[in-house]
Amino acid sequence: MIKFVRFDAGQGPEYGVLEGNKVFSIKGSIFGAWEKQGRSFELHEVKLLAPCEPRKVVCIGVNYKEVVNKKGDPIPEEPVIFLKPDTSVIGPEEAIISPEGIKELNYEAELVVVIKDRVKDVSVEDAKNHVLGYTCGNDITAKDFMEKGKPWTKAKGYDTFMPIGPCIVSGIDGDNLNIRMYHNGTMTQNSNTSDMVFNVSQIISYVSHIMTLNPGDIISTGTPPGKGNLKSGDIIEAEIDSIGRLKNTVR
Amino acid sequence: MIKFVRFDAGQGPEYGVLEGNKVFSIKGSIFGAWEKQGRSFELHEVKLLAPCEPRKVVCIGVNYKEVVNKKGDPIPEEPVIFLKPDTSVIGPEEAIISPEGIKELNYEAELVVVIKDRVKDVSVEDAKNHVLGYTCGNDITAKDFMEKGKPWTKAKGYDTFMPIGPCIVSGIDGDNLNIRMYHNGTMTQNSNTSDMVFNVSQIISYVSHIMTLNPGDIISTGTPPGKGNLKSGDIIEAEIDSIGRLKNTVR
Repeated sequence: MIKFVRFDAGQGPEYGVLEGNKVFSIKGSIFGAWEKQGRSFELHEVKLLAPCEPRKVVCIGVNYKEVVNKKGDPIPEEPVIFLKPDTSVIGPEEAIISPEGIKELNYEAELVVVIKDRVKDVSVEDAKNHVLGYTCGNDITAKDFMEKGKPWTKAKGYDTFMPIGPCIVSGIDGDNLNIRMYHNGTMTQNSNTSDMVFNVSQIISYVSHIMTLNPGDIISTGTPPGKGNLKSGDIIEAEIDSIGRLKNTVR
Repeated sequence: MIKFVRFDAGQGPEYGVLEGNKVFSIKGSIFGAWEKQGRSFELHEVKLLAPCEPRKVVCIGVNYKEVVNKKGDPIPEEPVIFLKPDTSVIGPEEAIISPEGIKELNYEAELVVVIKDRVKDVSVEDAKNHVLGYTCGNDITAKDFMEKGKPWTKAKGYDTFMPIGPCIVSGIDGDNLNIRMYHNGTMTQNSNTSDMVFNVSQIISYVSHIMTLNPGDIISTGTPPGKGNLKSGDIIEAEIDSIGRLKNTVR
């Protein structure tokens, strides 16, 4: 198990690995060959950033069985996919900025898959060979702007609407992780990724048959029941076992 | 008027300027300071590439008055925006690849705005100061996959579904350009960008109030009436006065 981080220790963004509470700076690329260099820091000495810089943010809707069952909808025949812009991505502790006058700002705890290398038309069997690791995500939606028959881009695409972090963890099983959300300290979502309608391999294979995925691109895999509304000043924390807790505030 | 191109003369992708039929290699950045270097080529000696490499491809739907009037729909109160992935972008002469078994593959000639520098929350008045120039675009849609209430991502997001080119032209008025499409040599779309419901400045301002735009990001501004269907082997050419003709084939 390796925990990759992106951080700023005062010299601009750099990549590193997290071991216990120590961050080791690396040279090379987390998507290829890398090694530790001499420098290291205590975790509290650095500012953690979004752990990667995706060009492409693919999200999956309606992907937990419990959500589908509660709504009484049929199980989707294929994943429902949508995009967020690169500029929606923020890191741990950064502020989610609510558009002015919004009545309903939804949070959704999600497992995020980070792609390791170029993937196109990959089989379900081979899909996980292209995963660098997993991180926590929070799919923010301005529900006021979700309109029937319209694309979801305005509602989902604002700057700061895709917090990810705190680290990318490799060597864990994405299909069996406890996932939770804490809204102002109260647990409001509590599930396991094994309840996903389409598992990690199926999602990657499906998306890669539509669009080429590149190193650092991310796929957010949908949210379990319990999503809720945010207001200014709220603290929202997505937590996944083995990965950690992604904490953001709302402004 | 400057015509920027991206091209390959056998040494990998580089940027240049097109003067008549001569391509001059440049050093620096088309988004900042640049100057011609010694090397130049005849246009036929180089392969033109997509003229920029956007991280973000924003598209506008339902944006020509004649389209709205024909449908009898009300004029939209605000631009309808959606995203395509970076990997949908291809250049001139590259093949549009039809997903297997598709019945209806639509083409749409569009004026594409290329963003010059970082833009966030820009006013309508100031918006055009952030435009590097304009190019031709072809918004390809697999209509079979447009489903009511679903995001448009699958239908619009396949690799090769956003041809752009042949060059980025600065110093022209994006709000008054003749735009045409030729389908296997027959003109099937013929309009002027002055018929757009939301003009270039309004679109940039609107989008920038949702998401930060960065150098090289593009906004495709919608299509006039006459969009049609493609089949394998077709030649499709989007043409805009002062810019040129973007030719692609379908496979």
